[in-house]
Amino acid sequence: MHASASHAESDDTGLAPLHRELAADLRGVNAVIREHMQSRVPLIPQLAGHIVAAGGKRLRPLLTLATARMCGHTGQRHIGLAASVEFIHTATLLHDDVVDGSELRRGLDTANAVWGNQASVLVGDFLFSRAFQLMVADGAQEVLRILSDASAVISEGEVHQLLTANDTETDERAYLEVIESKTAALFAAAARVGGVVAGRPEAEAAALERFGRGLGIAFQLTDDVLDYVPERGGLGKTPGDDFREGKITLPVVLAFAAGSEDERAFWRRCLEQLDQREGDLTHAVALMSKHGAIDGALHRAQAYARDARAELTGFPDGPIRAALLEALRFATARAAA
Amino acid sequence: MHASASHAESDDTGLAPLHRELAADLRGVNAVIREHMQSRVPLIPQLAGHIVAAGGKRLRPLLTLATARMCGHTGQRHIGLAASVEFIHTATLLHDDVVDGSELRRGLDTANAVWGNQASVLVGDFLFSRAFQLMVADGAQEVLRILSDASAVISEGEVHQLLTANDTETDERAYLEVIESKTAALFAAAARVGGVVAGRPEAEAAALERFGRGLGIAFQLTDDVLDYVPERGGLGKTPGDDFREGKITLPVVLAFAAGSEDERAFWRRCLEQLDQREGDLTHAVALMSKHGAIDGALHRAQAYARDARAELTGFPDGPIRAALLEALRFATARAAA
Repeated sequence: MHASASHAESDDTGLAPLHRELAADLRGVNAVIREHMQSRVPLIPQLAGHIVAAGGKRLRPLLTLATARMCGHTGQRHIGLAASVEFIHTATLLHDDVVDGSELRRGLDTANAVWGNQASVLVGDFLFSRAFQLMVADGAQEVLRILSDASAVISEGEVHQLLTANDTETDERAYLEVIESKTAALFAAAARVGGVVAGRPEAEAAALERFGRGLGIAFQLTDDVLDYVPERGGLGKTPGDDFREGKITLPVVLAFAAGSEDERAFWRRCLEQLDQREGDLTHAVALMSKHGAIDGALHRAQAYARDARAELTGFPDGPIRAALLEALRFATARAAA
Repeated sequence: MHASASHAESDDTGLAPLHRELAADLRGVNAVIREHMQSRVPLIPQLAGHIVAAGGKRLRPLLTLATARMCGHTGQRHIGLAASVEFIHTATLLHDDVVDGSELRRGLDTANAVWGNQASVLVGDFLFSRAFQLMVADGAQEVLRILSDASAVISEGEVHQLLTANDTETDERAYLEVIESKTAALFAAAARVGGVVAGRPEAEAAALERFGRGLGIAFQLTDDVLDYVPERGGLGKTPGDDFREGKITLPVVLAFAAGSEDERAFWRRCLEQLDQREGDLTHAVALMSKHGAIDGALHRAQAYARDARAELTGFPDGPIRAALLEALRFATARAAA
């Protein structure tokens, strides 16, 4: 739940090459999104427009656009499918904010804060249905399979995260399972779909899927770190949001695992009982530094990014591949100390 | 939102012929449902099993099974698609109960009452994804189109209903639009899918769709009446639930439209301000009787049922058509005075 890779999308310096190379395609995606969020029930485009326009950098649909073009696709099918990917993401965000009780997203009121939880749940369902209508209009069985499987994995990951929320006993494996499902599965599917649309063989589609998964995990790990250290350029959300909500992310998992009994009691008080006092966030960051938890999380992010980079080796050299590699570099560099 | 046609499913005397004729197919559907609600996250089958097992009579999947068999389908494809229809319905129920804040469904605690709203939202998303995976496994483009369109219409109807909730100015047309979307669209899609699976021409598929839609509206209208008059046999939910929640259903719409200014003030106090006192429900029923609002709603239900009956005229005479007609008769007869 909540703001998957939200920091990632709040500073687009590293995404600028993707935006530049795919500007026309992205305009097409935005037009499809605007068209398909319409409804005879006026609240639907109002609420959907609020979240769709709320500053997302369209990273997931950009992955579909980029992988399709890099693989030589010359048609327009990837546009509707990229819009479908963004609708799945948007529906997930609406439901995440309800589940988390979040009131702010990227500095704006959340849809549930403005229109209430009920409307957010139902409009999320509507956008999810729209995502499927767009896939069905495309008609390719393989694409439908990839995206419907990803949707099931995402919701599984969200339920799993709900169960690990505020549980300081969460270990690294459980944490990685959650972000692989709730964040990286859609990145992986979005990248694979581009290869499938371009008619590339299974080995290439699988490499793109692994690239997307690695990018998604690297983004999410870095995003989690950025809740405890200021972002380069300072464009992210205010640090401390995850801490205040009691989220168990990798820096916490690593600091807790290495911590003394006293330190564990501190983490339990802050993140399980949500009994937080002045100075607790600073103390949390100090404990993370002491145990190398920030660096540990960043090193893992860099390892995922390195593996993801290798997946693109066999693809045509050119501005789109370079833009994807720049996005990957940006995923971890924005938090590098 | 809430208990679409729940009364309808709480007394299966009129559905017994459908259950008898399609017993083997329905066992197949139940097996597919059990298999596909599994997940490596144990809360998912727990929560899903609670609602799936909570006494629904599988009316919507039975429509798919019955129309497919009536049209001469001899394969097994309709089994997975009927399960998909039930998953869409179940996902909708989970989200409805969250939106309504309902604590009881068919006399049992709702999933949100047991596991919380967060889990109900996310497991609903999971079941919705599972519905799409089942459709994709079937692979027929036409079926995917029917069911993804129905899903979008259902969520549109739910948002529309949210906007008309507790609004006594809701007119008959707006009310009918809501139940056509939120209830009848899935009945219509379920019935059409059976014809498509059996490979019948468009004219027949369209007739089945109209049959399903009419049956759905008749069920929902009767369900709404049963909140104000006791059901024959007394197996329905306790009358008065809709009234206590301030739901604007057709008996209310008709009584309000025909009412004096004093009477309208009464309806506003009870259903908009939810300021209800001892004797208000009895007074509401008396006002409905005075203005013929109960009979008016039932006559409309019967008119929809009559039109739906006519749609089956051209289909093969036999035990399955007879069972569908018996379900239709039951839809309105259970409330006939």
